[in-house]
Amino acid sequence: MTYCVAIKLNAGLVFLADSRTNAGIDQISSFRKLMIYERPGERFMVLLSAGNLSISQSVREVLQTTQIRDPEQPGEPVTIWNAGSLYDAARVVGHAVRSVHERDGEALRQAGVDFNVSLIFGGQVRGEHMRLFQVYSAGNFIEATDETPFFQVGESKYGKPVLDRILTPGTSLEDAAKCALVSMDSTLKSNLSVGLPLDMVLYENNRYQSDKIVCIDESNPYFRLLHGRWGAEIRKAFDSIESPRWQAGPDQPALQTADCRYPPLRKIAGPFDR
Amino acid sequence: MTYCVAIKLNAGLVFLADSRTNAGIDQISSFRKLMIYERPGERFMVLLSAGNLSISQSVREVLQTTQIRDPEQPGEPVTIWNAGSLYDAARVVGHAVRSVHERDGEALRQAGVDFNVSLIFGGQVRGEHMRLFQVYSAGNFIEATDETPFFQVGESKYGKPVLDRILTPGTSLEDAAKCALVSMDSTLKSNLSVGLPLDMVLYENNRYQSDKIVCIDESNPYFRLLHGRWGAEIRKAFDSIESPRWQAGPDQPALQTADCRYPPLRKIAGPFDR
Repeated sequence: MTYCVAIKLNAGLVFLADSRTNAGIDQISSFRKLMIYERPGERFMVLLSAGNLSISQSVREVLQTTQIRDPEQPGEPVTIWNAGSLYDAARVVGHAVRSVHERDGEALRQAGVDFNVSLIFGGQVRGEHMRLFQVYSAGNFIEATDETPFFQVGESKYGKPVLDRILTPGTSLEDAAKCALVSMDSTLKSNLSVGLPLDMVLYENNRYQSDKIVCIDESNPYFRLLHGRWGAEIRKAFDSIESPRWQAGPDQPALQTADCRYPPLRKIAGPFDR
Repeated sequence: MTYCVAIKLNAGLVFLADSRTNAGIDQISSFRKLMIYERPGERFMVLLSAGNLSISQSVREVLQTTQIRDPEQPGEPVTIWNAGSLYDAARVVGHAVRSVHERDGEALRQAGVDFNVSLIFGGQVRGEHMRLFQVYSAGNFIEATDETPFFQVGESKYGKPVLDRILTPGTSLEDAAKCALVSMDSTLKSNLSVGLPLDMVLYENNRYQSDKIVCIDESNPYFRLLHGRWGAEIRKAFDSIESPRWQAGPDQPALQTADCRYPPLRKIAGPFDR
């Protein structure tokens, strides 16, 4: 599997991907899953991919030369390099997914393999605000909004609670980067199919380029600090909350209460006790 | 879905289950998923269930009258009420799962429904130490050991990181109860298919009975405290860690480093840039 997360803030965009790929537990390798497309000053786009590696690699290859034509808008075909909006660029990505499906889908189906690929595609094209999309296996896609400022693909559940608790569109780029790394750290701890190195990109609004691109392995000074500190802080947070008492004390809320609006659980005492 | 967790400590056992069941997002109801089997002073057993509700309810019903016979040990057939070990009682549970599979499996398969049920079964029979098992759809099962002191079934991923970080066999019963509730709180926050009320049971080693049984709804004083405090403490823990800097400061580790043993990500600059 894989874990990728992308966050859209007022201040910019954060992209983070692990690099573990496994075909069964005994075939584990590192493959980078983050691609950067940049024409400095004009367009900056990032593609994150999870799912079947043969599909996502093909999509990335095909995407380079994918063109779509609008019957209603004759003229130059649209590519990710000339699309006037990131929405149109996302349509090109969706088209690339469908091309690979057309080529490989039936053979995969016959082999009993799902056509499984999940992409996150985001960035900014000059003349437009930043946008962030999640593209599905069918080539359709959804866009992040202020209410849902992040997308995840791959092993997304372990790292979701901290994103749900911390992120808002007003979060700073640095705090969102920290939050993405905490989310990744929890996933790394609980799931072997997600692994180092990580690729991370920070994009600042209206820059149309970025040099905040980093590959993070086990020697990365900040990630080491974060990993150690987060473990210790979670422990401290846990210890700071009083443990449950059964009966209410003078100034301590109890676990046991007569107020629950559901009936108490009955104990079963023998084979014919229904 | 559902989320259930059970923890085996030196001090005792903790069982926690939510009660939400959904058949599609528009058919959501409350069903209790925790069953207590008790002969005070002689045996105390708890069954938690996740998966297809028609299967898990049938397993619970059938379990009441399931008997297994050992060809090598003639005599009284074994039930959960006379099994001399919790291992034998878990075999009875596995047999009940197989009975339901024999009855319903083929019809479900024809309807395109997986025979999907996951159970946690734990407790103590007089003359033996406490034991905790996870029983699969095929009726086979595994036992918790000191290295892996907990089992989860259902929507287990959101709440796994905190269990991984906190639990050891030496954790106290109260701290493990707190940890299970934190794990549940994170799951409730991030997944709509898990919902209140919760059923919780604490069992103390060598008691062969328990009165620490509670149903927790939104009015429960301790769960309200925990929910509010954990959210605030996670925020504090997050804020207490410095945000990443790109360049190393005099006393601050940086995110950017030249030391990564993987090559830096290359930017793609145009359609023919391979």
